[in-house]
Amino acid sequence: MSGSGNLMDFLDEPFPDVGTYEDFHTIDWLREKSRDTDRHRKITSKSKESVWEFIKGLLDAWSGWVVMLLIGLLAGTLAGVIDLAVDWMTDLKEGICLSAFWYSHEQCCWTSTETTFEDRDKCPLWQKWSELLVNQSEGASAYILNYLLYILWALLFAFLAVSLVRVFAPYACGSGIPEIKTILSGFIIRGYLGKWTLLIKTVTLVLVVSSGLSLGKEGPLVHVACCCGNFFSSLFSKYSKNEGKRREVLSAAAAAGVSVAFGAPIGGVLFSLEEVSYYFPLKTLWRSFFAALVAAFTLRSINPFGNSRLVLFYVEYHTPWYMAELFPFILLGVFGGLWGTLFIRCNIAWCRRRKTTKLGKYPVLEVIVVTAITAIIAYPNPYTRKSTSELISELFNDCGALESSQLCDYINDPNMTRPVDDIPDRPAGLGVYTAMWQLALALIFKIVITIFTFGMKIPSGLFIPSMAVGAMAGRMVGIGVEQLAYHHHDWIIFRNWCRPGADCVTPGLYAMVGAAACLGGVTRMTVSLVVIMFELTGGLEYIVPLMAAAVTSKWVADAFGKEGIYEAHIHLNGYPFLDVKDEFTHRTLATDVMRPRRGEPPLSVLTQDSMTVEDVETLIKETDYNGFPVVVSRDSERLIGFAQRRELILAIKNARQRQEGIVSNSIMYFTEEPPELPANSPQPLKLRRVLNLSPFTVTDHTPMETVVDIFRKLGLRQCLVTRSGRLLGIITKKDVLRHMAQMANQDPESIMFN
Amino acid sequence: MSGSGNLMDFLDEPFPDVGTYEDFHTIDWLREKSRDTDRHRKITSKSKESVWEFIKGLLDAWSGWVVMLLIGLLAGTLAGVIDLAVDWMTDLKEGICLSAFWYSHEQCCWTSTETTFEDRDKCPLWQKWSELLVNQSEGASAYILNYLLYILWALLFAFLAVSLVRVFAPYACGSGIPEIKTILSGFIIRGYLGKWTLLIKTVTLVLVVSSGLSLGKEGPLVHVACCCGNFFSSLFSKYSKNEGKRREVLSAAAAAGVSVAFGAPIGGVLFSLEEVSYYFPLKTLWRSFFAALVAAFTLRSINPFGNSRLVLFYVEYHTPWYMAELFPFILLGVFGGLWGTLFIRCNIAWCRRRKTTKLGKYPVLEVIVVTAITAIIAYPNPYTRKSTSELISELFNDCGALESSQLCDYINDPNMTRPVDDIPDRPAGLGVYTAMWQLALALIFKIVITIFTFGMKIPSGLFIPSMAVGAMAGRMVGIGVEQLAYHHHDWIIFRNWCRPGADCVTPGLYAMVGAAACLGGVTRMTVSLVVIMFELTGGLEYIVPLMAAAVTSKWVADAFGKEGIYEAHIHLNGYPFLDVKDEFTHRTLATDVMRPRRGEPPLSVLTQDSMTVEDVETLIKETDYNGFPVVVSRDSERLIGFAQRRELILAIKNARQRQEGIVSNSIMYFTEEPPELPANSPQPLKLRRVLNLSPFTVTDHTPMETVVDIFRKLGLRQCLVTRSGRLLGIITKKDVLRHMAQMANQDPESIMFN
Repeated sequence: MSGSGNLMDFLDEPFPDVGTYEDFHTIDWLREKSRDTDRHRKITSKSKESVWEFIKGLLDAWSGWVVMLLIGLLAGTLAGVIDLAVDWMTDLKEGICLSAFWYSHEQCCWTSTETTFEDRDKCPLWQKWSELLVNQSEGASAYILNYLLYILWALLFAFLAVSLVRVFAPYACGSGIPEIKTILSGFIIRGYLGKWTLLIKTVTLVLVVSSGLSLGKEGPLVHVACCCGNFFSSLFSKYSKNEGKRREVLSAAAAAGVSVAFGAPIGGVLFSLEEVSYYFPLKTLWRSFFAALVAAFTLRSINPFGNSRLVLFYVEYHTPWYMAELFPFILLGVFGGLWGTLFIRCNIAWCRRRKTTKLGKYPVLEVIVVTAITAIIAYPNPYTRKSTSELISELFNDCGALESSQLCDYINDPNMTRPVDDIPDRPAGLGVYTAMWQLALALIFKIVITIFTFGMKIPSGLFIPSMAVGAMAGRMVGIGVEQLAYHHHDWIIFRNWCRPGADCVTPGLYAMVGAAACLGGVTRMTVSLVVIMFELTGGLEYIVPLMAAAVTSKWVADAFGKEGIYEAHIHLNGYPFLDVKDEFTHRTLATDVMRPRRGEPPLSVLTQDSMTVEDVETLIKETDYNGFPVVVSRDSERLIGFAQRRELILAIKNARQRQEGIVSNSIMYFTEEPPELPANSPQPLKLRRVLNLSPFTVTDHTPMETVVDIFRKLGLRQCLVTRSGRLLGIITKKDVLRHMAQMANQDPESIMFN
Repeated sequence: MSGSGNLMDFLDEPFPDVGTYEDFHTIDWLREKSRDTDRHRKITSKSKESVWEFIKGLLDAWSGWVVMLLIGLLAGTLAGVIDLAVDWMTDLKEGICLSAFWYSHEQCCWTSTETTFEDRDKCPLWQKWSELLVNQSEGASAYILNYLLYILWALLFAFLAVSLVRVFAPYACGSGIPEIKTILSGFIIRGYLGKWTLLIKTVTLVLVVSSGLSLGKEGPLVHVACCCGNFFSSLFSKYSKNEGKRREVLSAAAAAGVSVAFGAPIGGVLFSLEEVSYYFPLKTLWRSFFAALVAAFTLRSINPFGNSRLVLFYVEYHTPWYMAELFPFILLGVFGGLWGTLFIRCNIAWCRRRKTTKLGKYPVLEVIVVTAITAIIAYPNPYTRKSTSELISELFNDCGALESSQLCDYINDPNMTRPVDDIPDRPAGLGVYTAMWQLALALIFKIVITIFTFGMKIPSGLFIPSMAVGAMAGRMVGIGVEQLAYHHHDWIIFRNWCRPGADCVTPGLYAMVGAAACLGGVTRMTVSLVVIMFELTGGLEYIVPLMAAAVTSKWVADAFGKEGIYEAHIHLNGYPFLDVKDEFTHRTLATDVMRPRRGEPPLSVLTQDSMTVEDVETLIKETDYNGFPVVVSRDSERLIGFAQRRELILAIKNARQRQEGIVSNSIMYFTEEPPELPANSPQPLKLRRVLNLSPFTVTDHTPMETVVDIFRKLGLRQCLVTRSGRLLGIITKKDVLRHMAQMANQDPESIMFN
């Protein structure tokens, strides 16, 4: 095994910084993997030497689980703290608790004697601002005062948030998922998952959610969890020194993030697998599951919702669904798909405008204006005034007998004596009609404002606003169907399943289906979406309606464009992301994509034993390639390896400083033995250890679909193109991406058949 | 794009059989993918020509969903029919229904007036054999008659099953999962998923399960579902003509199989992903989920268990678990791991013995003997007499107030008036002690007999026997802990959570945890195991005990050997299966693995334009390689491509028949232009279209871990090894497997650190 010596030399990292990557560069997955195997081998062989080394080896093997445990604990705790803080600060906009100012409305009234839901607002310890300041709880002036304070608090929160982001952690803005997807695919963005980002994103997330802007905390929680993952992986050399291993931890952290966002651990793992991760070995699956569970249970033991429930929107319906209802469910799916398309197009257009025009120069002002508009419009409408999660929760709920909500204002039959849970369909009362109007207005408002909110320089998630849009539409459709069924039992479509006096239609279920459809339309999640929704309801009963809506929504949205919102933002920002889902089906060959193209100057190569140090330094200075192929000689062009730019520079610098006799016209050689040189020539410089002797090659006849597949599955940075052993050119990841974009533009119709 | 012409020629399949594979060969995933893309391209471009072609294109794009729907429907139906038939035939061993002989005991007594569980045996329409034949229901002679008939029926069923398998479908034996794993990884076993196998496996599965042998129907159901998948994919040219695409359908079918086996659609998808599948793109994930759901709902609408439940073992516990209970749960995990190791070692040793000694020559006799022993020992013990699923169901159950089972024979406090569901811990009665003894005997019997049963020439699944072993052990531990807690509330370990009169310990939960542990020990499933169990209980409450047991069991079992039962059987049978989970961490290079080794004759190669037809025919005759590299000339050894043996033979045969002037000393050439030949030489034969111009190459310095990764991720059959463009050797999948086995034997200790 003599041949392996050089490779190992190289992997031993003879000088500092070799083996790390520059910012905004792509990692080499194969190399990271090979470095990890090497590390592993070393530990295994050492562990035979002594008991202490053996224990160290075992500890190293277990460190993965420790990291997962820590991530779960921290992510769960942060999620709990965020939930509690948001609860308090959201209520702070309307009033304050006299017994203890840090209590939210609900906590404040827990000890109060008026415990029913209806009297919730009348708990004496909780005072609205108008009551506290001018001692009026009703009337126009009290309303105006409360209105003004509501707006002021919202502006204050939003201003604080955007300032913190601007000053301390610019990377804390947005949902973070597009960037995390890019990072997991092997891109380096330094600081994106740093401690400052973690801290600021957590704090500002609380602020922006409390400010009442149309955004959610779910996406940012994934980012927060990934920051935790990055922090803990930096404590263990196994992960901190290997960008590939680190990404395994981050994948698991993303699962923990979704797990706490929704209280859905299985859905979280599937989300990480389906949406976020790039390299997801089975080991990661198991560990992600562990992290997700720990996080979910940590959150539950903090119990921020005060109901011992793990899930964000716990619902329980008492009636099954009927086949005929599939039609409105599919309609909701169509609505979700259309909303998804509309949202993505408008949001991307607006974000592009922000990037290219003056708008982008005033992020603080933008946030202030949007917050002001949101607060002004939101306050008068009860459905937009309350926090979006509460809204969704109310819309999902089935109307029980004790429900005091306006949405449940049905006309009761005075003769009716039925158990609490089994209430037949009833005619809608005035409250329901009012609610319908208010919901319709809230829906339009949410649709418009969300487009402008997502993408501002504050943390902002999309899950909750999308779900809110869907839930409002769904609830309205649900009430419509319910009233139709009540007033027209005899219609053929109702006759078979909806007898008078029966409880046939559950408007809350429609809200849930609508929420799934809209979320699916925007994110194009499929399995994870259905599983998250399934975990929210906890029964297989409603999986068919959810699936019908999710599938329809995805198909409708895909018909207008394959990209989900995250991919769209990745493209907008120009990240080098090679999507696993895009299928490349064009008839091109490697030779069509490789550089140099026809007419371009020849490829910059190094020869194995005939270039001087100065030649190489000039080459490095004049080009900005990440690396250079090494060939036998310029005539034969037979490839022997590949040298990274960064390592060449370091090696030359190192040699010039430490090695005697290395001057500008020293010959550099990559072979085992130094070349035969004239007698008086300066000492040659051996660089075999920076030479990658196993560069990846394909022939010029390789179809591009195979090349794309190889890049995707092996996570390459570049690939050399040869024909019968001669080097012809090079294909980098960026070349592949550019080519794919080109081909997609040429032939947009092919989308329909994928 | 002139260069692509030849490749396309080749993909157009100019003569029949090109592009198919021989039996027991490995498919080339990259090529299958590229053929599919090509097909896709053709349809897309055609679809622009006319409306009809457009519709055909759309239909083709939708055929995947249609196949999934059909698989779901058929798999669900078959599972339902199997359940019903097993129910009937299991009861047939004990008696018959007088009103209609095709009714099972339960169905027979549905219409009866004695509807409580206790009177179940006294329903007058159901007669035991002794009652029917000699009109005695009690007494020694009746017992002996029933005993004899029980054995006779069992022998009849088993004999029928083994004969059917032997005569009609030898592939129908076993669980099928090892073979399906191998097939999904790209191996061809013709007939393994054929229609005969489907039919015979379905019928014999009913017979063997009814015969009371210690086996389950879950594994074989996966095989049955895959047969359905294969059948339906043969109806659509998109899948029937492409081995790669066909495997996507099979992955989804496997998910549908587990989905109906346990009523756990999400668990089924994860099982397919974690355990069975090899190539699992996200598209497949979504479709698998769809197939699994359709299958589950079809099964539910057939409703074989008569309780509208989807799941096989529906349980509902009324008490939470306590931290202190984690200790017995982990103990159960250790037991599961030990049982897994014991089972795998003994079973493999026995199967090896069967393969190498005379034993293997008498499969029918073996089945008869094992059935006879099973029936003789099983009848006297009530826990082994009933079907294994019923046993598990009873063990999982919490003791309610109405439970008549022996296991629930606790001494009631006569003063107690409590609601039905909330029963405090009570002292065990005589029945419980009897049950403990019987369970202990049943446990030993099950452990021993399962080792000999699994691997016989009948369909046999492992899930149910493993779960039974775990459930028995778990229930016993559970009852032990319960009684300990009842009699010793004051012990420090119980004092904090188990007050007198409280219901603290649920023995059924212990049974479930034990079942998970044992199943995990045998199969090494992790996520899918926990998710299946989670779907069975339907609550996140018990996921921590389940995970603790599953993790412990896996760790304990892994410490004794990494292989699960399926991998062990794959190795035993010598299938070329490259496991995704095995990590290769050795320090070898491609040059150490490639052939020819040092001292071996040089690699058999073809030259691009200097060999005659006869030379090639001789080479083909003398070697049995699957293909030959093509080089420029023997001197330069520069690689230009790779030609498959099968296609060379077909091309030469074809040319000799149809092309004039082709004789034995015609020159064969692979270049674009014919070589310059002497004036009177015969017409040369152009073979460029059978030349693969993009063979996969690595350099001799490539570390083997990278090579293994490439083989795994790209699904290669072979890979050529070059150094600076010169061909040095070849590595086939079998070489990789052989090398991995070698290295694993050299260094067994490294297991601990993986």
